[in-house]
Amino acid sequence: MPGNTFGQIFRITTWGESHGPALGVVIDGCPPRLALSEETIQKALDRRRPGKGGVAETTRKEPDRVEILSGVFNGLTTGTPISLAIRNKDAKSKSYSELERLFRPGHGDFTYLKRYGIRDHRGGGRSSGRETAARVAAGAVAQVLLDSEGIKVQAYTVSLGGIRAEKMDMEQCTQNRLFCPDSYAALRMEERAAEARKAGDSLGGVVEVMATGVPAGIGDPVFDKLDAEIAKALMSIGAVKGVEIGSGFKAAELTGSQNNDPIGPDGFMSNNAGGILAGISNGEPVVARAAVKPIPSISLEQDTVDIDGNPVKLSVKGRHDISAIPRIVPVCQAMMRLVLADHLLRTRTLTAKT
Amino acid sequence: MPGNTFGQIFRITTWGESHGPALGVVIDGCPPRLALSEETIQKALDRRRPGKGGVAETTRKEPDRVEILSGVFNGLTTGTPISLAIRNKDAKSKSYSELERLFRPGHGDFTYLKRYGIRDHRGGGRSSGRETAARVAAGAVAQVLLDSEGIKVQAYTVSLGGIRAEKMDMEQCTQNRLFCPDSYAALRMEERAAEARKAGDSLGGVVEVMATGVPAGIGDPVFDKLDAEIAKALMSIGAVKGVEIGSGFKAAELTGSQNNDPIGPDGFMSNNAGGILAGISNGEPVVARAAVKPIPSISLEQDTVDIDGNPVKLSVKGRHDISAIPRIVPVCQAMMRLVLADHLLRTRTLTAKT
Amino acid sequence: MPGNTFGQIFRITTWGESHGPALGVVIDGCPPRLALSEETIQKALDRRRPGKGGVAETTRKEPDRVEILSGVFNGLTTGTPISLAIRNKDAKSKSYSELERLFRPGHGDFTYLKRYGIRDHRGGGRSSGRETAARVAAGAVAQVLLDSEGIKVQAYTVSLGGIRAEKMDMEQCTQNRLFCPDSYAALRMEERAAEARKAGDSLGGVVEVMATGVPAGIGDPVFDKLDAEIAKALMSIGAVKGVEIGSGFKAAELTGSQNNDPIGPDGFMSNNAGGILAGISNGEPVVARAAVKPIPSISLEQDTVDIDGNPVKLSVKGRHDISAIPRIVPVCQAMMRLVLADHLLRTRTLTAKT
Amino acid sequence: MPGNTFGQIFRITTWGESHGPALGVVIDGCPPRLALSEETIQKALDRRRPGKGGVAETTRKEPDRVEILSGVFNGLTTGTPISLAIRNKDAKSKSYSELERLFRPGHGDFTYLKRYGIRDHRGGGRSSGRETAARVAAGAVAQVLLDSEGIKVQAYTVSLGGIRAEKMDMEQCTQNRLFCPDSYAALRMEERAAEARKAGDSLGGVVEVMATGVPAGIGDPVFDKLDAEIAKALMSIGAVKGVEIGSGFKAAELTGSQNNDPIGPDGFMSNNAGGILAGISNGEPVVARAAVKPIPSISLEQDTVDIDGNPVKLSVKGRHDISAIPRIVPVCQAMMRLVLADHLLRTRTLTAKT
Repeated sequence: MPGNTFGQIFRITTWGESHGPALGVVIDGCPPRLALSEETIQKALDRRRPGKGGVAETTRKEPDRVEILSGVFNGLTTGTPISLAIRNKDAKSKSYSELERLFRPGHGDFTYLKRYGIRDHRGGGRSSGRETAARVAAGAVAQVLLDSEGIKVQAYTVSLGGIRAEKMDMEQCTQNRLFCPDSYAALRMEERAAEARKAGDSLGGVVEVMATGVPAGIGDPVFDKLDAEIAKALMSIGAVKGVEIGSGFKAAELTGSQNNDPIGPDGFMSNNAGGILAGISNGEPVVARAAVKPIPSISLEQDTVDIDGNPVKLSVKGRHDISAIPRIVPVCQAMMRLVLADHLLRTRTLTAKT
Repeated sequence: MPGNTFGQIFRITTWGESHGPALGVVIDGCPPRLALSEETIQKALDRRRPGKGGVAETTRKEPDRVEILSGVFNGLTTGTPISLAIRNKDAKSKSYSELERLFRPGHGDFTYLKRYGIRDHRGGGRSSGRETAARVAAGAVAQVLLDSEGIKVQAYTVSLGGIRAEKMDMEQCTQNRLFCPDSYAALRMEERAAEARKAGDSLGGVVEVMATGVPAGIGDPVFDKLDAEIAKALMSIGAVKGVEIGSGFKAAELTGSQNNDPIGPDGFMSNNAGGILAGISNGEPVVARAAVKPIPSISLEQDTVDIDGNPVKLSVKGRHDISAIPRIVPVCQAMMRLVLADHLLRTRTLTAKT
Repeated sequence: MPGNTFGQIFRITTWGESHGPALGVVIDGCPPRLALSEETIQKALDRRRPGKGGVAETTRKEPDRVEILSGVFNGLTTGTPISLAIRNKDAKSKSYSELERLFRPGHGDFTYLKRYGIRDHRGGGRSSGRETAARVAAGAVAQVLLDSEGIKVQAYTVSLGGIRAEKMDMEQCTQNRLFCPDSYAALRMEERAAEARKAGDSLGGVVEVMATGVPAGIGDPVFDKLDAEIAKALMSIGAVKGVEIGSGFKAAELTGSQNNDPIGPDGFMSNNAGGILAGISNGEPVVARAAVKPIPSISLEQDTVDIDGNPVKLSVKGRHDISAIPRIVPVCQAMMRLVLADHLLRTRTLTAKT
Repeated sequence: MPGNTFGQIFRITTWGESHGPALGVVIDGCPPRLALSEETIQKALDRRRPGKGGVAETTRKEPDRVEILSGVFNGLTTGTPISLAIRNKDAKSKSYSELERLFRPGHGDFTYLKRYGIRDHRGGGRSSGRETAARVAAGAVAQVLLDSEGIKVQAYTVSLGGIRAEKMDMEQCTQNRLFCPDSYAALRMEERAAEARKAGDSLGGVVEVMATGVPAGIGDPVFDKLDAEIAKALMSIGAVKGVEIGSGFKAAELTGSQNNDPIGPDGFMSNNAGGILAGISNGEPVVARAAVKPIPSISLEQDTVDIDGNPVKLSVKGRHDISAIPRIVPVCQAMMRLVLADHLLRTRTLTAKT
């Protein structure tokens, strides 16, 4: 069974390669009569684009203009599939031809060839980070549905290169290029990134996603638990190597009396559960974190082999992002939106009426 | 879409409550002509049963005898659905009646009621850890398929109550009750558990799962990446709050030059990737870890409310497990087996022939 | 992807062989808090059992007692999987051993061996008509949901051995052993069956299914149209070779002005559409017919081969049903119930709220 | 669960409205390294376009140029999603504005409004026959896979307006505009169509689809039987009201000795089964027929109502097709191709190795 579809009811299928003519997504199952425009989606896509200077600044500059090809009539969704396409404009394949016969460490070059026996080597082909543009576009449509239910999803950087945000001032997130809730930490992260750039190296980090307004009762035990679906959603982003919910890995070192969230007449008194109990939302904010590995393309020399197995020294030239953060922040946000939109609709089929 | 099915090709559907007449699983998509007996499955189930003394020792004693009801003829699978059932024997509902009107902190009592408007309060009903017996049984069948391809899956405890295994001596795993590869650490973990018991509290821990013999080329980008599916599989286990692959959360603090696995003529020179690149296995051991929260049922007094919202002081009496570890170890192993069996079969539909 | 699951939201997975220990079904996605008892299901099963004398009278006598193993608590569904099992009692495998090495014409003996490389030859194994008991049991649960929405499903015999019901007196359906709405035709059908029995031959027929009370707006274009799903549902019954909706094959010979259903202020003025337009219910009765082939097991001598390809003359001995009708009538009813229950729930996720 | 996806392994998702910017399909699960060009797909699409004169001749003239947007690299499929798009050029919405407030008899106007609470009235929106262009394009890709296994699929007209093909000369199918294997019958069908046109009426017919080279062993009992999937596939085409396999409805009137296909050392001696036994292919040609209702848009006056329930006399003006045949012939062919491609790949996961 092919793997390019996500969701059961609010279901998306993405397509497209880094250097093909276009990339896009088909959204099937979006409820009818939601107001939807290209502008709404475009705004989300623009957040994902590499900014000027700083951590993310590949020379490739894509306008990423989205076009709605179906499913919207007179500004409203019709309940039929919504097809979105984004043309690739600045796809200079030539610069990648030298990589055609190499397996870049940390990339999918080797595994894609093993999987399919053929590989579109241009810019990573399907395994490129560009694929996530379709996720962000679909996530923006999901958010229109979530808006109608009062659900908000925020994503932000809580660590980069080992530097952690100590303050959680959500208003700061829009004030710095790293979507970091701690402006002082953001400055230090930028400095750390500058050092890494100078060293020809790259950095990882941690993104946190928080959804507020999620009603209690969302999630489908036993396998499609809300946290299980969030884990899959975030881990399906290329650079993510770990996911945790609420107290996460820290829970492994706490005692029950420390980790349990007591309940009072006004609700839960803490949120170590990250808003999810037994796979179902409990009404508290849903909180997840994703560990993002450092960008594997670095100019420091690395050992690798070519497709014939001959050893090669590889140094990736040109300006590359130092970290997948901040670009991955809107992608994590999009995946959470997609999980919630899907489960919100799934809930309608089963929840008790009373 | 209901959530009790896992897998696309090797697909299981589990059913059953803690205190209902039975629990079980239907496995659809198991290839024909594999040798399968009740003994093979029973052996896996026996590993999951609470041992005598130590960390896991609920007073409930279930023989957990599995019966094969279909799909096997003359000792061979036939390719038709394999139905497995386990009767509940020692289901004393009465002892739970006091909990009928309470929401236990850290449990799904509140969220199940919100989700379904009705709740089988006896022992957690469907949200009980007993549900995992069906997973372990199905995992044993998956392993028969994996055996035919030379794939082995091991699971073991790498931390409990903050105490970490420092040595990785796999042979030790069968020598202590905690499935811990470090026998000295295991002793200290038992001590730590004894302290927690005395304090009326409970402990969490971390389980690692490692699969060897997985050929390169398994996994279905972009959403059904092998790591994404493993993340979902492990996070769908009730007590798990975090999942990581390879270097995991540590990767967020490493640089690219530290985290990339160099490639030589003899293969990858390290395994920070945990055997997975771009969502596809790379031929190295697949390594995942699951963070397990402390058991929420503790005798220390906790604040909670009853179903009418009145504040209640709750102290859970009786002998309860101190930690989901070690019982969760075979469950993590089972989930990894199920993911691999499914993806192994999925690969047959798409892998290049040459 | 294995094929023993039907439905997307109200989703059933059946299991079991003709001569295995048991057969059954797991229903996932049934809404909570519906009143459900074994008696309700048993009543539906009893309608499917071979009566005494007449068209259907295999010597095998199965009590077909159903047991609810999960998903029901205090007489109400809980929203968790409902597991139903029926033990096989009268499974005399020996009488089938002579068929172990033969391919019976019209049966799945040859194709199952080709598909799986192994075959449970006892009574047809998984391809036996006994498999439909699980469908009928699941259909009874679906009907509980349909009842809550005022939807009724009737199935009845409209032709047998070439004799057609001319009258449609629904009250007659319960008055004869053939579920035929025309009591005179039913008599002639019985006579025709007696002749066939004497001749050592068997008969086919046509079953009609009608659902009333189906609200307009059910069905999921473009592939999961309501009629497409009904077609699959009915054609998945072993003996069915044709399915039609409304005017069906006759529509191919009508003109547009004859076949179109005019619309008036009080609704549709005719029902050639069979209650479905563009794959969505239009509020009229949903009407489908299934063509049932004659039972392939006959005592008349037939040419076949054994598994080594040697020619054999086969005459199937013992008392066999003369026609799959009337036993298939409750199965057709069950499949319609399952389609409607599933689509009713699917509709909840997408239908406009206004 | 939304309904615009078909297939489990070779899985397509279609999108697009009659008068939107474009329509298309995403194919996920196509094996890698198949030679695929736009020309191959274009050729199939051209067969579906309305010819000049005769039965099908709407004034709308769409070039239907297909563009491959992803999944193909250097002329070979890569195993990643294949996205195909066809721009709508000649979409004159104005001519449909008069129908905005009417429910056309025999069309989905009423039911789409009931289903979604909103309706793209321009040319039928999503319920338009134009949607089938995407199916034909996807079917052409499926055929590339089938070609690699030696499977051929033919579709042809066996009746139109009550006139039946008496001869089955497959070479004739390409010699007349109706894809009819009986050239004399084709002439009479054209005459019958001319009469209907003069009368302001329309005609139905029957399409047969035959697949040769299908190996024995394809199909997934019990619900995803090959015939069940074909029934769904064909019935999901808008105008189809009936589907039969092999002897089909005629089987209902035959005896077992007449309908059974005897088996000899050289194989089956007849093919009443239509190539399918117990839901699995038996190596004989797979034969299905679809009953196509007459085009509902006729110039003869019909009774209907507007969206407020007021009675209206409707006469559909302009040149319309007299029959969905012959345009539906390539669509039936495409759906059979899609079913076979999907099940061919599904078989790989389960078939016995020996």
